This record gives sequence, structure tokens and C-alpha cells, in this order.
Amino acid sequence: MREVRVVLWGLGAMGSGIARVLARRKGVLVVGACDINPDYAGRNLYEALGIPQEGRPDAPIQAEILEAIVHKSVDICVIATNSFVKDVYPKVLQVVAEGVNVLTIAEEMAWPWAQSPDMALDMHIMAVQNKVSVLGTGINPGMMMDLLAVCLSGAQTDLSQVHCERVNSLSPFGKAVMEEQGIGMTPEAFEEGVADGSLAGHVGFEESIHMMASAFGWPVEEVITRMQPIVTQVDRKAPHGEAKAGRVAGVDMTGLGTVQGKERITMRHPQQIEPGLAGVETGDYITLKGEPPIEMAIKPEVDGGLGTVAMACNVLPFVVAAKPGLLSMLDLPVPRCVMGDYRAIAFPEGAE
Amino acid sequence: MREVRVVLWGLGAMGSGIARVLARRKGVLVVGACDINPDYAGRNLYEALGIPQEGRPDAPIQAEILEAIVHKSVDICVIATNSFVKDVYPKVLQVVAEGVNVLTIAEEMAWPWAQSPDMALDMHIMAVQNKVSVLGTGINPGMMMDLLAVCLSGAQTDLSQVHCERVNSLSPFGKAVMEEQGIGMTPEAFEEGVADGSLAGHVGFEESIHMMASAFGWPVEEVITRMQPIVTQVDRKAPHGEAKAGRVAGVDMTGLGTVQGKERITMRHPQQIEPGLAGVETGDYITLKGEPPIEMAIKPEVDGGLGTVAMACNVLPFVVAAKPGLLSMLDLPVPRCVMGDYRAIAFPEGAE
Repeated sequence: MREVRVVLWGLGAMGSGIARVLARRKGVLVVGACDINPDYAGRNLYEALGIPQEGRPDAPIQAEILEAIVHKSVDICVIATNSFVKDVYPKVLQVVAEGVNVLTIAEEMAWPWAQSPDMALDMHIMAVQNKVSVLGTGINPGMMMDLLAVCLSGAQTDLSQVHCERVNSLSPFGKAVMEEQGIGMTPEAFEEGVADGSLAGHVGFEESIHMMASAFGWPVEEVITRMQPIVTQVDRKAPHGEAKAGRVAGVDMTGLGTVQGKERITMRHPQQIEPGLAGVETGDYITLKGEPPIEMAIKPEVDGGLGTVAMACNVLPFVVAAKPGLLSMLDLPVPRCVMGDYRAIAFPEGAE
Repeated sequence: MREVRVVLWGLGAMGSGIARVLARRKGVLVVGACDINPDYAGRNLYEALGIPQEGRPDAPIQAEILEAIVHKSVDICVIATNSFVKDVYPKVLQVVAEGVNVLTIAEEMAWPWAQSPDMALDMHIMAVQNKVSVLGTGINPGMMMDLLAVCLSGAQTDLSQVHCERVNSLSPFGKAVMEEQGIGMTPEAFEEGVADGSLAGHVGFEESIHMMASAFGWPVEEVITRMQPIVTQVDRKAPHGEAKAGRVAGVDMTGLGTVQGKERITMRHPQQIEPGLAGVETGDYITLKGEPPIEMAIKPEVDGGLGTVAMACNVLPFVVAAKPGLLSMLDLPVPRCVMGDYRAIAFPEGAE
């Protein structure tokens, strides 16, 4: 039986990470890629990314997605280029029109119905018409602050309130993340950046809250998110960023989902450099009030970069096998680390 | 649209707990029951169990399952009568032959292919022929020592070893459990009970190990389980059981799954009365070695009785909607506490 055939759209940190992991997996083959980086133009993905090719056919990197997809019998395209639905939407439609399934790590695509219901409907109709499925996933949104809480609640007879908290360190990240998160800024400059939209913080609370509420059958009335600076009391220094005492060492994101007049879903996601210097222990925490109550902790937090690459690689064969339409992680079987052959999942009745 | 219609087979602690929870849920109706307890013969379930009836039609308790099912347009039967496949197998076939879906909390049904592959094949063929689905679930096996580890591994690019540990207290349980687990016995009498099969301990390690291995794509070579007495150093006393120093205060179950010559899956499940007196902290623990490594803790452990009732009530509408055949928790969407209307899940395209 032939391998599951994949095209990667976007070869940044996440896309190239996905290429590396898929090269270690069985029954799956990256056959092409699309990236606008001129350094990659016309090169073979294995050579360009330094991945051992081990007898696989060349996977050319194209500047145009259609050149990467057409005449390749591609099963699925992984889009790792954007965070917002409005930016990834035309790309999704372009791939779907070719009859190719789509998996994307665009954060808002974890629950596109939350903020872009019209575009979500378009994508759903186009996917059904072209008999393919479209799914957004990632570590957060997609797992640590939503799907995992959903899964744990399966052990509850009653659920009244959900609190998800993800406390992580920004120290391993590069200069771009330091700038996006305002590391080293004065609190005043940070507030200006929030006001003018140049500091985005974490993208995904709207999506996580709506995903969880949908899973539990809760009608959400209102979602409020808030972004505040973490102003350090002590000097902090990470490899790519620095914050003296009184400056911004990170971002504290909070979210609140109101259901039937009650504060049912609360979210907290403080991200900062060198949290240990402020006595902060990193981790993923989920508290489910109800019967029985459940208090979960994962210490330290699940690595965000590896986690997003993993989620994409692990749900990929399930997206190929799924029913047509715009889907969410709530529609798929429980995610799992797929160490066996991708074909057993993607083609349960054999490849065409 | 009509409600999802349920018949309960077995009204012990679990079956009656399921009846109570379903009575609080929306869009689902218990229409009948079967139990051999002569005290229940011919009575209405709501009256017999003291559940507020709130305008629902009477649900008669019958001694024969066919009387409970026939002419009732039943969607699903919940079987809560046995632990082992061999005992529940004829019951499953009887219900399936009537064209009714089956959900059971029989521990071995969480992965019936592990120890009873022939009966599993029979059940699968009969379910497909009758266009219904059959699923086993529960808190353990079914969730805390298998499905939850599977779900967490979705965030990993590589997985090399799984360790699941569930440390719980037997103190809340009644006399029957105290006797089954050998509480208060001498270590010698306990070993005799293990040897002659009168002490079963926890049922489910074979099933959990095979379920996880299947999820990861690992071919299991061997499963070894072991049951040892927890001999107390201090006097312990629970409401329904007692162990003086030197006597058995609980059971320590361990399990090992070997994959390709490596010890890939290890399990530990010590159950005892008054663990606090021996300085033991109860909880559910999962350690996944690989990339990234994941260490999860839930303290205290998720309540086993409530948890099993919850799992059954929460996956019920998904079993009604599922494709025909003998299924496992790996085939269904992520479990969740269903606080909304059951019909939206069970009848996605409307009831017939």
C-alpha cells in the first residue's frame, strides 16, 4: 500500500519541525512543500532542512502551493503559516478546492466558529463539496487548556466550573517572541502596545473557551480576555531577552467565559522569562469543580514548540480518515502518539 | 424529537448510580430495567430507587431482559452485571440480536480482544449484522490508567515508555469489597486466596496494556501481572474493614507490558484501607518518557465509583451515534461531561 502523502505549507520553526518528525514515522511521506523564503526556492526539502533522505523521492520546495500539490496524489496539506482565521482562510479554500485535506496549526482554527462564523461556514461547505476534511490543532489551543480538560471531565457526573492554567517560561524562545511579548518594555510602553494591537499575546482563549463550552453543552454568553504585563521585582536575563526590575518580564493572559449568568470557565496563562527568579513554578493545571472534583497538574508544563509539532503529526492520519467538513478536535478520536504505521489509521479500508 | 431511550441491565451500586445521573441529564430517558433482585420484581424503577419521577413514564423492572427491551424502541442497553467477558458475552449477544446498542462497564470489555479474541470477533460480527455498536468503558480500565495516558501522548513527538499509577483508598467501600480484596487476612491466607483464584484483585491490567499498545502502534509480546498483599505495619480501621499490624490492609497490583523486547508499559495500582496511616498519598499518576517528557498527577485520585458511573453516562450518546461493530474508547471522540442535550450527540441527523 502506498504511503500517506503530505505537502507542507510553511517551513518555519513549526513546519520544519513537522517535516523532521514525519521523517521518523512509518507509512507517511512528505512529497512536497511550499514556502516563500527565497533561500529555499527550488530546493529539495530533505537537503534544505538537513533531514536524512533515506531513499525517499525528492520533495521540491515551491513558491506556489498549486505547484506543490497538483499531480502529486496528495492526501493532506499541513498549513503552518498564520495564527488568524482571516489569514489562513484563503489558503484553506485553495487547498480544499484541489480535493486535498487540510491540517493547520493556525491558533484560531482550533475553533473557527468563535470569531469567524461566516468564514467557518464557507470552509465547511467547500470541504463537504470537495469531500475533504479541515482541522485546526496545536498544543494551545488544541490540547493543554481545552481538550485535556474536556477529556478529564468525562470522569465527572456533574461539572459546574472549569479553570485552566498554563504557566510557562519564555526563556527558550528567540528574539521575535521577546519582541511580540514586550519583554524589557516599560509598563507604559506595554500598555500602548496592547492598545494599538502591536502586542498580541497568546492567541486562543476565545477558541478554547468556545470549544470547551460546546463539549459540555454550555451556551456561552460572553467571553472576556485580558492581557496584563508581568512587571518584575528582580532583574531577569534570558538568552534572547532581558528585563530589569520595574520592566516587563512577560505577559499575564486571563480569560473568562460566562454561561447562563455564571462564571463557568476561567483561564490563566502567564508567560515570562526566568519565572524561577520570581519563585514561579511552571506547569499545566486543570481544576474541574463538580462531582467528583478533579485537580490535575503537569509539572513542568508540556513544551509548547514540541507539543504543537506533535499534535499536528499525531492527528494527521485521523484527518485523512475523517468524514468531510470543517472539524474540531472534539470530532476526532482521542489524540495519541502514533508510533505505528500511519496507513492503518488513514486508510482503514485500504488506499485507493 | 424523542429522547434517547435507555434500558439498564443490573441495578447494583453502578447501575442504580447510572439511573440517578441519567435522571438529571437532558434528552435521555430510562424506559426500563432488568434485575434479578426479587425485591425489585415488577416495580417502577423511579419508585424502587427513590429517584424523582418528574412526569416521566414508569420504567418497569423486569426479571427478563427481553421483557424490558421488546416493543420499547430502545436505543441502548447499559449492562452493569459482570466483570469478565465470558459472563457478559451471552448478555451482549442477546441485546444485540434485538437491534439495540450495548454499553457495558464489565472491566474486560474495555479491550475484549486482549483475553477473549474469539468472543470479541463474535460480538463484532453480530453487532455489524444488527447495525448496532457495543462498547466497554469505566474509570479503570477505560480512563485513568489507559485512555488518559493515550490522550496525553498526543502532545509527544516520541514515546518510549509509559508508567501509570493509581493509588487509592478502599476505606469508603463496603463489606463485599473488603472480602474480595482480603482485608484483615493473614499474608498466608491471602497467598492461598490468590493461588485458588478466590481473590481477584483489580481486573483490567491486561485490557489497559493492550489498549495503550494498540493506540501507540506497539506490538505487545507479553503481559505479566502480579498481585501482592499490602501488609500493614500499623493497626488500621475503616468503617467496613480492619487490619491489625501484620495483617493484609490492601492489594498491590503491578503489570508489565513488553514490546519488542523492551519493558514499555508499567502499571501499579495499590488499593488499601486508610492509606494515610502509612503515609501514602492517594492519586492518579502518569509518566510518559519521550519527547517532550510528561509527568501528570491528579491528587487525590478520581473517585472510582462516581467515575465509572460518569464514564458510562457520558459516552452513552456517542455509542448510539457510533458506527456499527465492537468498539473501544480509542474509536470514540474524546469523552466529556455531557451537560447539554443527549439528542444533539446521539441523533446528529435527527431521530428516526
